[in-house]
Amino acid sequence: MSHGLPEDIGRAIQQAADEVISLKLLQHFPLVVWQTGSGTQSNMNANEVISNRAIEILGGEMGSKSPVHPNDHVNMSASSNDTFPTVMHIAAVVEIETKLLPSLKALLAAFQEKVEAFENIIKIGRTHLQDATPLTLGQEFSGYATQLAFGVERIEATLPRLKLLAQGGTAVGTGLNTKKGFDVAVAAEVSRLTGTEFKTAPNKFEALAAHDAIVEASGALNTLACSLMKIANDIRYLGSGPRCGLGELSLPENEPGSSIMPGKVNPTQCEAITMVCAQVIGNNTTITVAGSQGQFELNVFKPVLIKNLLHSITLLADGMTSFKDNCVVGIQANEDKIEKLLHESLMLVTCLNSKIGYDTASKVAKNAHRKGITLKQSALELGALTNEEFDQLVRPELMIAPK
Amino acid sequence: MSHGLPEDIGRAIQQAADEVISLKLLQHFPLVVWQTGSGTQSNMNANEVISNRAIEILGGEMGSKSPVHPNDHVNMSASSNDTFPTVMHIAAVVEIETKLLPSLKALLAAFQEKVEAFENIIKIGRTHLQDATPLTLGQEFSGYATQLAFGVERIEATLPRLKLLAQGGTAVGTGLNTKKGFDVAVAAEVSRLTGTEFKTAPNKFEALAAHDAIVEASGALNTLACSLMKIANDIRYLGSGPRCGLGELSLPENEPGSSIMPGKVNPTQCEAITMVCAQVIGNNTTITVAGSQGQFELNVFKPVLIKNLLHSITLLADGMTSFKDNCVVGIQANEDKIEKLLHESLMLVTCLNSKIGYDTASKVAKNAHRKGITLKQSALELGALTNEEFDQLVRPELMIAPK
Amino acid sequence: MSHGLPEDIGRAIQQAADEVISLKLLQHFPLVVWQTGSGTQSNMNANEVISNRAIEILGGEMGSKSPVHPNDHVNMSASSNDTFPTVMHIAAVVEIETKLLPSLKALLAAFQEKVEAFENIIKIGRTHLQDATPLTLGQEFSGYATQLAFGVERIEATLPRLKLLAQGGTAVGTGLNTKKGFDVAVAAEVSRLTGTEFKTAPNKFEALAAHDAIVEASGALNTLACSLMKIANDIRYLGSGPRCGLGELSLPENEPGSSIMPGKVNPTQCEAITMVCAQVIGNNTTITVAGSQGQFELNVFKPVLIKNLLHSITLLADGMTSFKDNCVVGIQANEDKIEKLLHESLMLVTCLNSKIGYDTASKVAKNAHRKGITLKQSALELGALTNEEFDQLVRPELMIAPK
Amino acid sequence: MSHGLPEDIGRAIQQAADEVISLKLLQHFPLVVWQTGSGTQSNMNANEVISNRAIEILGGEMGSKSPVHPNDHVNMSASSNDTFPTVMHIAAVVEIETKLLPSLKALLAAFQEKVEAFENIIKIGRTHLQDATPLTLGQEFSGYATQLAFGVERIEATLPRLKLLAQGGTAVGTGLNTKKGFDVAVAAEVSRLTGTEFKTAPNKFEALAAHDAIVEASGALNTLACSLMKIANDIRYLGSGPRCGLGELSLPENEPGSSIMPGKVNPTQCEAITMVCAQVIGNNTTITVAGSQGQFELNVFKPVLIKNLLHSITLLADGMTSFKDNCVVGIQANEDKIEKLLHESLMLVTCLNSKIGYDTASKVAKNAHRKGITLKQSALELGALTNEEFDQLVRPELMIAPK
Repeated sequence: MSHGLPEDIGRAIQQAADEVISLKLLQHFPLVVWQTGSGTQSNMNANEVISNRAIEILGGEMGSKSPVHPNDHVNMSASSNDTFPTVMHIAAVVEIETKLLPSLKALLAAFQEKVEAFENIIKIGRTHLQDATPLTLGQEFSGYATQLAFGVERIEATLPRLKLLAQGGTAVGTGLNTKKGFDVAVAAEVSRLTGTEFKTAPNKFEALAAHDAIVEASGALNTLACSLMKIANDIRYLGSGPRCGLGELSLPENEPGSSIMPGKVNPTQCEAITMVCAQVIGNNTTITVAGSQGQFELNVFKPVLIKNLLHSITLLADGMTSFKDNCVVGIQANEDKIEKLLHESLMLVTCLNSKIGYDTASKVAKNAHRKGITLKQSALELGALTNEEFDQLVRPELMIAPK
Repeated sequence: MSHGLPEDIGRAIQQAADEVISLKLLQHFPLVVWQTGSGTQSNMNANEVISNRAIEILGGEMGSKSPVHPNDHVNMSASSNDTFPTVMHIAAVVEIETKLLPSLKALLAAFQEKVEAFENIIKIGRTHLQDATPLTLGQEFSGYATQLAFGVERIEATLPRLKLLAQGGTAVGTGLNTKKGFDVAVAAEVSRLTGTEFKTAPNKFEALAAHDAIVEASGALNTLACSLMKIANDIRYLGSGPRCGLGELSLPENEPGSSIMPGKVNPTQCEAITMVCAQVIGNNTTITVAGSQGQFELNVFKPVLIKNLLHSITLLADGMTSFKDNCVVGIQANEDKIEKLLHESLMLVTCLNSKIGYDTASKVAKNAHRKGITLKQSALELGALTNEEFDQLVRPELMIAPK
Repeated sequence: MSHGLPEDIGRAIQQAADEVISLKLLQHFPLVVWQTGSGTQSNMNANEVISNRAIEILGGEMGSKSPVHPNDHVNMSASSNDTFPTVMHIAAVVEIETKLLPSLKALLAAFQEKVEAFENIIKIGRTHLQDATPLTLGQEFSGYATQLAFGVERIEATLPRLKLLAQGGTAVGTGLNTKKGFDVAVAAEVSRLTGTEFKTAPNKFEALAAHDAIVEASGALNTLACSLMKIANDIRYLGSGPRCGLGELSLPENEPGSSIMPGKVNPTQCEAITMVCAQVIGNNTTITVAGSQGQFELNVFKPVLIKNLLHSITLLADGMTSFKDNCVVGIQANEDKIEKLLHESLMLVTCLNSKIGYDTASKVAKNAHRKGITLKQSALELGALTNEEFDQLVRPELMIAPK
Repeated sequence: MSHGLPEDIGRAIQQAADEVISLKLLQHFPLVVWQTGSGTQSNMNANEVISNRAIEILGGEMGSKSPVHPNDHVNMSASSNDTFPTVMHIAAVVEIETKLLPSLKALLAAFQEKVEAFENIIKIGRTHLQDATPLTLGQEFSGYATQLAFGVERIEATLPRLKLLAQGGTAVGTGLNTKKGFDVAVAAEVSRLTGTEFKTAPNKFEALAAHDAIVEASGALNTLACSLMKIANDIRYLGSGPRCGLGELSLPENEPGSSIMPGKVNPTQCEAITMVCAQVIGNNTTITVAGSQGQFELNVFKPVLIKNLLHSITLLADGMTSFKDNCVVGIQANEDKIEKLLHESLMLVTCLNSKIGYDTASKVAKNAHRKGITLKQSALELGALTNEEFDQLVRPELMIAPK
């Protein structure tokens, strides 16, 4: 209206648009993703629903395109080619900021609580799946927390380019049929409405013809999926058992486990989140293929791009919330089992390197392994250390930090 | 019942199961993909709905587990661990055989019709996007038809391993709590019911712990996606224009093209099918990641595996049908434009290789290109051939087959 | 020569080509993969090296293109566009048949030996990483063997389309500048030289413009990578320890394990083969992207396609051989540990389902778990069975097969 | 030495390490990627070569481990588990900063020059491959430049996490066998040596067990590959011809094009860079799979992770330099062809929307298309505008910007 749309038409369009937003008119949006690659059909769907409802509001005849025309009035100063990518970016940013990041931060907080709760539990480390030197369970969980904290950073690092809006580029990026300043005004208004700062894209040709910002954001989600896959795998292995696995953790027992094995409890939440990760990783491939295929002034894989990005965002957000609520907060340490394994390990020998050298220490460990005896028995048998020296040196609590 | 289930309970279970099949009880299946990785929750959901309905049929009290118990009777001789992968394979095979292959074969037939319709239209070939030697439009389309015909072969080549059923393996593959021959009997019964031949898996441990057959089938769909991406890309480029593109084909004008550019018609069907291809390629990555992560006696990515495979099957089947109906059958050759381009080309020079040698032929082509003259003018100017020789030798109709 | 090439030139070309094959002239082939997408530069490289050497043989002046011209004589009746894909298919088939399949079959044989060696060792099964019903270690390994046996089938299932040769299609698939029957004769000769049956491609347009056969073959390798990832993961987890892991297997100790932890031995071979799998899975993505991007009469991603396929073949072949020699054949069962874990498990309760029902069995297992007692103690405590009944029913050796 | 290593041994180690850096001892490093997943074998290889050479320098007997021990002295205060990921990050950052970013920025500069050179050439736009409203060729190229400028931003945005070093974590991340402050000192020294600022990783457990920073960086390279794929595809299509393509651009003619078609010139550089993009996209999948599979205190896919990341960096850096030098800087506009196409287009009708409305404008365009007449002829024929109005309104130079 500030650029020339008659006020009565403008107000009717606004009212109609608000009704669309309220989902009242949802049944008039029957389209699927597999349509034209610009999303024009969805955009025209919206234009037509709004114009018809605006006509109705103004007392006109629906379908007459008068007094509110879907193209001339509702789509005024706009094209699917700038409107659709604008909506893609708004939707992605809003979903990331209001769903994904809060869910990720809440999961991070849940892990940080475990870091503290577990800070004094010393356990055996495992590298190559083989027994290694000890660490605290809190330290182990601090690795997960750090992965998630970096996840926040890396998702946020992609937002600057996702917060650029194409609106004002119209058909090919030139801004034909708009007025100067329209693009900036739109971005300002979107910022006001969403409460997060968007800017107009500095180059509208890029904003229509490429969707690198979507590919970039998906890359960050892909990385988060790798983090979660690692964390959930660790947790289910550490919780494996109850009698024949590693058994260092107890996971909450939420769901019935087996239709044939009575009393079985499974790490369902870890399975759900790792399935989510597999989906997000595949969605990233879809987005990559689609994002690489822009042609001249337009990338015509827009619907599949935003469908996959929003799918990944929602799956991760919901998945992390469920993982946190139904698994992480309830994880308990099986301290007896942890203690038992720690003291059976041979890798405590590592702290002897500076005292007796790598080669002798190696002999002590191998001798113990071969004979099935303890490290101490082996050290004494080989004359590497005295009883007192061993007790003084081989203390797990001295092995969990630099000197 | 043939293995000992009381007949009244068996019949009630059958009736209840038939009602589930009829979708009457659909509202009692609220679960999503992102559950336990064995699909046990969905399996128990089915067991419980069936047992409760069977109880109702028999006049009992729903929720009482009596006289029909969800585990002891409905899940009798079974485990989610063999039932769920059995259903995965049945669903995949049936969808491939009743939806995907018919759709693919129909698209193939549509292309074969075009091969015949276009068999006499000689056009310029393009390699590296650059003008090359001529071929017929029918020959060009025969390449597409061959890709699809091979697509049928390669999808069918994956079915033998998809037609193996896990049922009878129960919890870990041993067949505990079943009787000998149960597995074979189930496969025979499934074959009878579906009308396609399934066999019992020769090794149930593999059938529960790995889903390589799903990965393999997805690989064939991934290949089909590559074929369709190539074909649809070609068609939309050949149909590009109407004035400033290649313009050799006219595609059916189904949809309004642009919200801002009046009269614009776009290759919407090509865009929809290429978006489908991008999705199928990404689904293949999801399936690959999920398929590689089996652990000991079970792969716990079952729901995400079958969700993605069925998604790919359905998208391809529906997408190819729409592409055929709304695009391929209506493709028309713009013979004037094709003829015009053919005669402007310089690559007709290739047929002179055996007459004047590659180097002289090269000079003729480059001279014509530099000066913007015809091939004939260039050949005469350089004294490479006489007028008569040129007319006799440089005839596109002689260039579309071996001598 | 049978189609008109002068015999002296033909023989000189043959001799020169044999010298190329013998690798004597290798230093004249400096090109990399990242060249023209048709491989024309490599093809012309070969044509020129051969023509120059043939000129030398015939006493001419190198570089003079006389009496043997690189295009007119060496490339006679051919084009990079049919020659290069022909060589792609020959190389792929020969490498698969002489390297990959033998290596895969040898690995399969090694696993089959373990199946027999381990057939009487009963162990705890694990589903969802949690203790499940027992199976024999031989049964567990039979799953791996079956994955590999199916791997042979699925790779072989892709060969029919890989054994089709493009030669004879020349520039765009029409066979311009060849004679009828040339294509068939080439395929026959290649079959004779390689000892495996190739056929001429029934449609040369497809053979130049698409490389679906490469994508398809890569899909089978991708599936094999999933199989190997699963197998190697299982083996390293089953071999984890020596004191704080599952410890059911001992893997050969080939390499020094750690630069800081004395005496540490790691599952190096499992790590190498899983890294190979990750590479093969990524190569499949490269091949998929490249294979989807043919344009009109030519796919111009040929070098990157064949580079990745051959890379995957070689990595898998060499990787499986090393995995077999340095790991699989030397795997030993730790029978004491296996026995110990088996008898601690609670999931032996599953065999009681048909006796006492799922719900009572479940109570027995959960009671044992909660109190840290044995299954038998729990069963007696709850009055579910008598001592004699328990001993009679709960016998792992009865749980590893149907009744 | 500042932490207690004897000075003579320390100096000999430094001298030996400098010789390794100088590549003099390269033949003593025979290992491949497909080794242990921690890279321990490569680390021990280095430790042993250095210790042996240091022994030699000090006059000792090589192989005696005295007076310089590979573990006790060269690997002092270190483990493969922190050293190898430290080297991974240093190598990645240095290659990105000294090769990739300079190459990318140079390509960006080359495109920016074209933006200026082409700023006054008005051409037809293309959306959905169909004729659209006009823009300048400079505007079109500004889209490419913007993609690359954002590429710089998004790669730089991943560096903060790649500049964190694991050194000081030793075996499992605790820093056992180091002294406090050692980690910080190492990062400072690496910063001094490389001239770029590294920091010690705030959490060493994450730094050993996960390689999310590698996955994140690869995601940025994957995005750059999408940008380059789009740009190179556009350029080769715009340069397609010379007679039967779009023909708006002339690309430099560097390489002989065809072995059979004389005088053919192909967009070789576009093909090489798009093949690079396909490889980088596949490498990203490898990195994603490998990066998701850390286990407990260690990710054992380290060699394949860094191999693929460095491969992608080098391919992109070299590929962009070649693309710039051999293609972009030499691109010329075919102004005659561009002008001709522009004036044939029907989509100039778009500027009439605000004058005559979308529906009437649409009729004008469709009428022209159907009858093969010009837009003006059609407008006059339908009485939509007068001759003067048309000439005044339909001017491409007014259509390339907002009013």
